[in-house]
Amino acid sequence: METRIGHYCGLFGVYGEEHAAAMIHLGLQALQHRGQESAGIAVAHEKDLRCERGSGLVTSALSRDQVEALPGRIGIGHVRYATTGGPDPRNAQPLLVHYRGGPVALAHNGDITNKAALREECEKAGATFFTSSDTETIVNLLGREGGADFTGSLHRTLRRLEGAFSLVILRPGEIHAVRDPNGFRPLSIGRTEKGAWLVASETCAFTLFGAEFVRDVAPGEHVTINKDGLSSRRYAEARRPAQCIFEHVYFARPDSRVFGENVHLVRTRLGAALAKESPADADIVVAVPESGVSAAQGYSQESGIPQDKGFIKNHYVGRTFLKPSPEARLSSVRLKLAPVPEVVGGKRLVVVDDSIVRGTTSLGRIQSLRQAGAREIHFRISCPPVLWPCFYGIDFPTREELIASRMSVESIRRYLGVDSLAYLSLDGLLKSVQGGADAFCTACFTGDYPTAVPPGSLPTRCV
Amino acid sequence: METRIGHYCGLFGVYGEEHAAAMIHLGLQALQHRGQESAGIAVAHEKDLRCERGSGLVTSALSRDQVEALPGRIGIGHVRYATTGGPDPRNAQPLLVHYRGGPVALAHNGDITNKAALREECEKAGATFFTSSDTETIVNLLGREGGADFTGSLHRTLRRLEGAFSLVILRPGEIHAVRDPNGFRPLSIGRTEKGAWLVASETCAFTLFGAEFVRDVAPGEHVTINKDGLSSRRYAEARRPAQCIFEHVYFARPDSRVFGENVHLVRTRLGAALAKESPADADIVVAVPESGVSAAQGYSQESGIPQDKGFIKNHYVGRTFLKPSPEARLSSVRLKLAPVPEVVGGKRLVVVDDSIVRGTTSLGRIQSLRQAGAREIHFRISCPPVLWPCFYGIDFPTREELIASRMSVESIRRYLGVDSLAYLSLDGLLKSVQGGADAFCTACFTGDYPTAVPPGSLPTRCV
Amino acid sequence: METRIGHYCGLFGVYGEEHAAAMIHLGLQALQHRGQESAGIAVAHEKDLRCERGSGLVTSALSRDQVEALPGRIGIGHVRYATTGGPDPRNAQPLLVHYRGGPVALAHNGDITNKAALREECEKAGATFFTSSDTETIVNLLGREGGADFTGSLHRTLRRLEGAFSLVILRPGEIHAVRDPNGFRPLSIGRTEKGAWLVASETCAFTLFGAEFVRDVAPGEHVTINKDGLSSRRYAEARRPAQCIFEHVYFARPDSRVFGENVHLVRTRLGAALAKESPADADIVVAVPESGVSAAQGYSQESGIPQDKGFIKNHYVGRTFLKPSPEARLSSVRLKLAPVPEVVGGKRLVVVDDSIVRGTTSLGRIQSLRQAGAREIHFRISCPPVLWPCFYGIDFPTREELIASRMSVESIRRYLGVDSLAYLSLDGLLKSVQGGADAFCTACFTGDYPTAVPPGSLPTRCV
Amino acid sequence: METRIGHYCGLFGVYGEEHAAAMIHLGLQALQHRGQESAGIAVAHEKDLRCERGSGLVTSALSRDQVEALPGRIGIGHVRYATTGGPDPRNAQPLLVHYRGGPVALAHNGDITNKAALREECEKAGATFFTSSDTETIVNLLGREGGADFTGSLHRTLRRLEGAFSLVILRPGEIHAVRDPNGFRPLSIGRTEKGAWLVASETCAFTLFGAEFVRDVAPGEHVTINKDGLSSRRYAEARRPAQCIFEHVYFARPDSRVFGENVHLVRTRLGAALAKESPADADIVVAVPESGVSAAQGYSQESGIPQDKGFIKNHYVGRTFLKPSPEARLSSVRLKLAPVPEVVGGKRLVVVDDSIVRGTTSLGRIQSLRQAGAREIHFRISCPPVLWPCFYGIDFPTREELIASRMSVESIRRYLGVDSLAYLSLDGLLKSVQGGADAFCTACFTGDYPTAVPPGSLPTRCV
Repeated sequence: METRIGHYCGLFGVYGEEHAAAMIHLGLQALQHRGQESAGIAVAHEKDLRCERGSGLVTSALSRDQVEALPGRIGIGHVRYATTGGPDPRNAQPLLVHYRGGPVALAHNGDITNKAALREECEKAGATFFTSSDTETIVNLLGREGGADFTGSLHRTLRRLEGAFSLVILRPGEIHAVRDPNGFRPLSIGRTEKGAWLVASETCAFTLFGAEFVRDVAPGEHVTINKDGLSSRRYAEARRPAQCIFEHVYFARPDSRVFGENVHLVRTRLGAALAKESPADADIVVAVPESGVSAAQGYSQESGIPQDKGFIKNHYVGRTFLKPSPEARLSSVRLKLAPVPEVVGGKRLVVVDDSIVRGTTSLGRIQSLRQAGAREIHFRISCPPVLWPCFYGIDFPTREELIASRMSVESIRRYLGVDSLAYLSLDGLLKSVQGGADAFCTACFTGDYPTAVPPGSLPTRCV
Repeated sequence: METRIGHYCGLFGVYGEEHAAAMIHLGLQALQHRGQESAGIAVAHEKDLRCERGSGLVTSALSRDQVEALPGRIGIGHVRYATTGGPDPRNAQPLLVHYRGGPVALAHNGDITNKAALREECEKAGATFFTSSDTETIVNLLGREGGADFTGSLHRTLRRLEGAFSLVILRPGEIHAVRDPNGFRPLSIGRTEKGAWLVASETCAFTLFGAEFVRDVAPGEHVTINKDGLSSRRYAEARRPAQCIFEHVYFARPDSRVFGENVHLVRTRLGAALAKESPADADIVVAVPESGVSAAQGYSQESGIPQDKGFIKNHYVGRTFLKPSPEARLSSVRLKLAPVPEVVGGKRLVVVDDSIVRGTTSLGRIQSLRQAGAREIHFRISCPPVLWPCFYGIDFPTREELIASRMSVESIRRYLGVDSLAYLSLDGLLKSVQGGADAFCTACFTGDYPTAVPPGSLPTRCV
Repeated sequence: METRIGHYCGLFGVYGEEHAAAMIHLGLQALQHRGQESAGIAVAHEKDLRCERGSGLVTSALSRDQVEALPGRIGIGHVRYATTGGPDPRNAQPLLVHYRGGPVALAHNGDITNKAALREECEKAGATFFTSSDTETIVNLLGREGGADFTGSLHRTLRRLEGAFSLVILRPGEIHAVRDPNGFRPLSIGRTEKGAWLVASETCAFTLFGAEFVRDVAPGEHVTINKDGLSSRRYAEARRPAQCIFEHVYFARPDSRVFGENVHLVRTRLGAALAKESPADADIVVAVPESGVSAAQGYSQESGIPQDKGFIKNHYVGRTFLKPSPEARLSSVRLKLAPVPEVVGGKRLVVVDDSIVRGTTSLGRIQSLRQAGAREIHFRISCPPVLWPCFYGIDFPTREELIASRMSVESIRRYLGVDSLAYLSLDGLLKSVQGGADAFCTACFTGDYPTAVPPGSLPTRCV
Repeated sequence: METRIGHYCGLFGVYGEEHAAAMIHLGLQALQHRGQESAGIAVAHEKDLRCERGSGLVTSALSRDQVEALPGRIGIGHVRYATTGGPDPRNAQPLLVHYRGGPVALAHNGDITNKAALREECEKAGATFFTSSDTETIVNLLGREGGADFTGSLHRTLRRLEGAFSLVILRPGEIHAVRDPNGFRPLSIGRTEKGAWLVASETCAFTLFGAEFVRDVAPGEHVTINKDGLSSRRYAEARRPAQCIFEHVYFARPDSRVFGENVHLVRTRLGAALAKESPADADIVVAVPESGVSAAQGYSQESGIPQDKGFIKNHYVGRTFLKPSPEARLSSVRLKLAPVPEVVGGKRLVVVDDSIVRGTTSLGRIQSLRQAGAREIHFRISCPPVLWPCFYGIDFPTREELIASRMSVESIRRYLGVDSLAYLSLDGLLKSVQGGADAFCTACFTGDYPTAVPPGSLPTRCV
């Protein structure tokens, strides 16, 4: 992946471990790839909830003093993704509010498609909103649904929501985990050796603590964890399964188990499928780190072409003060990903990446390989071209910016100056994941949305 | 004043000046003495409102980038006082919310006595609260009162409030200024040479711009300023006048005109009254800077005893890393206020301050004067002893901490080790201010509250 | 004083108190008015010296962690003044170096007039310089003078120096205090109740700890304090006494004893002399805080015209984001010093300040008094016009910037728009200080320098 | 490599490119792996040199304002490695000094073995030292050697130095590059397309700009670059070649060309040699990222055992607030390097790393693989055990901390709990690098030092 594609958030919850806040602080770091804009932790302490939130990466957003000011054995946490509009600390989650049902903290991963209508309804009833986030709308609905019967009012609230939502909710003495009826976003349950319960967007946060994966929260399920252990209720029937295929293609960490399968193994299969569909006569396979690494391994194994390190990634955050120019841009690309002349010089390469977004960064990388002496470049992408907007929590660039919605594959090939270019087919993609077409949302490739979308939000035509 | 007494906030509004935000940023600095915890500015730009808020003094809370990101000719600002619980950026004002009436920003100075009941009512109706501040309750009520008719819903909201509230409110194209029916807190209207309207808690923010004082907002009045100029409505009848006498005694800046009079001149009169009531046979009058300076001048003029600089104030913020000990505490007192041995050595002093709160800091100052060679010390305080809690926006220490509620005047004299000690009488105080007993709230001295107070909040007995 | 005049540094040393570093940290805060660019502390711990330095005010330059990392009972500290070129942390003092005599730390207040020649000599002998400061030259000379006999090599070094230098020097187990043979800058010795020795640029740092003033270090004297107590040597004969008169006029804190006299009392005498020389027919005397306060008191006492608070100083650091314009500049002036309309309105004022530097700030203040309604303004300055550069540690603006070197008194009067303007005469100034013309350097008023000045550095002519 | 091994610094120089400072800022980021403690840039502007330095990574040490304050087309830069004693900003380089030869800035990579004797000599001659770094000693020698003839005095200075030193030196209008006569540390010359000259510790900083590698600076060579182009002088005969083998094993970036060969290719050969020497019957080869990646590739290719991603590296900086405990330590290890259960579960692994230092981190990683289900673990290390201290710029832990100097290979195997453990032999190592035993220093493995070492610095015996 050349340009970062935005994603809404990672969730983590702990029930029953000493200093839950320190565990959440660590667990959020394992989920850091799901959001770098802000981070927050809320804990339950006796009858009260407390919350600390901040901007930036987990380690800078939440200081030792803040984490140590959060006592107790129960808590939830959230990392939030960086929107283009810049980080606004008011949008950090969890949201902690007081209402007639007492204090409640809520963290959300996803996107509500009927948020505008719901918000208008709340406003008509007298609500005031501090932020523009759909999470505040969820909280408002919950407040209006009632106080005494939390489960009932939560279920009534959830049934009003359409779209993608995985939620963790904290009340004094208990945490709740919820997944939308389509199951767009992942949410899993784990357990530590000592018996504490964990909830996380991805299982890599379980492995961190040597905890075992118990099961996924099911679409339409509401799980409660309190002193009586874990209990499950269904607040809605499961609908058409619509797991986000991009979690496998790009978002999730390779060591996570998502939607029943290890991500690295899925990506290896995508690479193998790509090798079958679009072979190339080449000397070595070169991965674009990090996102293309697993698929490149699959391509190499399937094709028999050996893999080699054509690019070295610089793990330090880079920054340039050079005046804007083509050379400066190219230096900036090479600062992050340096070509290795001795590896690629005179060779015919298969270069494997997970996607092309705007095209400019891919162009820089291809140019840097050429300058390092590559003889032929066969560019392979481990998913189909992204053509349609997402309403379920992925922040793709606008259609105008997405190169695949402006150009044909052949035009992109010429633009990049590669000898051949191929994307994985939708069929090849779906055959590589458990459940296939019946289990996943592929609207970003096809425009076939599993739910109603906000009125007037679809492009009128597509290339 | 030895220990800081807390106070809730200062307000400033601008209608009709280019780059209103930069003006507000400056105006808030002139009101900085009314609150150092946080500061915020909201502006109206076309159909939209924007807000920036931050922790600390105005100059650190709001950066140049933040101020320049606030366009337009209309805006309001707020400084908030530092509570003992430490600054919480979420409590910064103005509060900017969206509701069915559109966007609105509100800043508040005062304290609502029926806030608990109002909040409970809102929660029963489904409201969720993000903070514990009464300002959020006001905003919630406004949201519930309706949308189309702003004036009507504002008036209905205001009539629900009891206690002290001066408000400035911003909507697209207009600002509103409101004062409670008792008129506890000041709020004045000014006008610049170029014709822009200003609203401020104190007139020192007008002088800053060379603007003229127009008039005070009246108790129970709602002033609107928009493209049609200034218009006035009454949302409630004025009630028993209850201007806060402590604005004159301590809070307001000496150069401000508050409740119809210049503060420095009032304080000079308090000192003169004190000299008449409690003369002393002494060589020089020494002010405790800054709060005792004006009263000392009055004492000196009335008594004919010359004033001299017995204390020098260090204007740099001090901080000590010495281990706690009596000597370290005394050094800390002297770091802020240094005695001048050559001035006080061998002399009989009248030392004038505006109040004694806990007594510990006064003790340190008296000791440092003794160590510098003072022969006699006659301590004079320019208001009566504070004995009762305030429900209208002043954060006195608790009764247990207030020395005057634990000790008689003679006991305090012995504790401080001064040769004589006298407070100004209530009568002497009221005779020195315009309107006297009929115009001011003196509940902190007398326990005679001008409004109902929150149930169960009064001490059962008083020394 | 309207515009800050720069000054080189304040010194503080402690011998024999537990956690000397924390005491020095506090003592430097009492000397903060002598320098705000940077601060540093060095301590002796067993055979070793340690040093921490930083930029800005003492409290921000040196954190608790830094101060607590400095063990021991012996140490020295330094505050450095902010040059126009901006703070360079490399220029912070004390300078800590190792040479064949072991480790040594040195802090300097003053200016060496033959620094260029000395530096050239060191360079010829092979020295390398890290900074442009004359303090590094002193250290270099010391290194070259030898190792085994510290006293001898120090004396040889000191005899090479010309100009102004008060020094405190730290070695393992001892501190040294030195004053130049002309005695330009102050340096005093104090003693705490517990018997520890203190050395400070001003005695206000003794009062802070309740310590007694013992005596001044004499011109040409080298004082050593170690386990054998205090001992004194003379490294050079005292020369023509040349105490800096500006310490009394402006620099020193009013509560300090400098050159044998309390500064506030001296300034009161300057004001009285000014009243005698230049009386005015007026209603009130108004001080320009803070620098004009003592002189205004003297003027009032001598003239019988009562003093009143015509200006209120805002003690918060101000900052404006208004676009540059005459109004914005005036607001900026009034933010720092606000006129009190009720005090000055309709009155004839005597306004007392200690000096006029560039004239622009004075102009703003006069204008703000006019706008507040002052009827007549008689401006009185408590020293003669500054016409000549200083080579002994004061950083006056350049001659082009000094209004008095460009304009006659009458022209300045017209420029400021005051009804009368008068400076104190040199004679009046000298009669007000102990020792008079024989004891002080007045070169900035007269051009009569007590030592040779750097070749080519004098202006060819003077107004 | 499990625990970071320290290394002294990276160098970069530019002659002839617009805004050299911005280029250096970028080039230093490509060399960031060679030092993270501090960074600095010096530029030549007309007759003057300017320098900015700071603590931490390049991007935080040097702000945009600092970089833009460095004008000109000529400059040098330096990154410095983090010692255990914590970063001291005074040790940041380049060192910029003035001496009789004018201004000069110098940056150093290496370690001078006779530094103590040289420093003592300088001190005896009167020098004062601000830091404990040997770089200041070099500068001091240069100052003492003379002024007029820079080349002569530089050569005399260099001939006094023993040990490892690569230097870049800046004077007005020219840069100089020097390598010690043994050639311990790399230093290369490059050229941009536009004709500007570059000097860098590693060629990855050339690739960044698309610049070509010209040649290495030779041992004993002094290269000057100025308006007349590049010229070369020899200041000393080359001595026994002693290139640091650890540059290939661990330090250098895989995409760099060092001592005539690409680092990644050398490491691949080390892995292949390891596979030949110490085969294993296993299912997959797992690299310990990042340092073991290239060797694992070689092991896989030679053995025919496929490579797979058994570990996922978390690229965000991690931090834990968990209380110290074995579980917390293991979580901390897994936060940085997460095992992938689906990859390693039930498998027999060959795990390849470049070295074992203290053993504790390796232990954590082995344990996390076991917990993730690994059936057999065969641990392979791509160099011999490190047994001897380095005096040429590598900061190994002390002998007590180095596990290989305390335990036999079999004991380490039992400690780590692996099924087999093997190190690459010295012979295998030397056969994999160009020039072999005649070209490299292998003292850390053998104790055979190519130069005299500081007296008394060697351990008396070795395991």
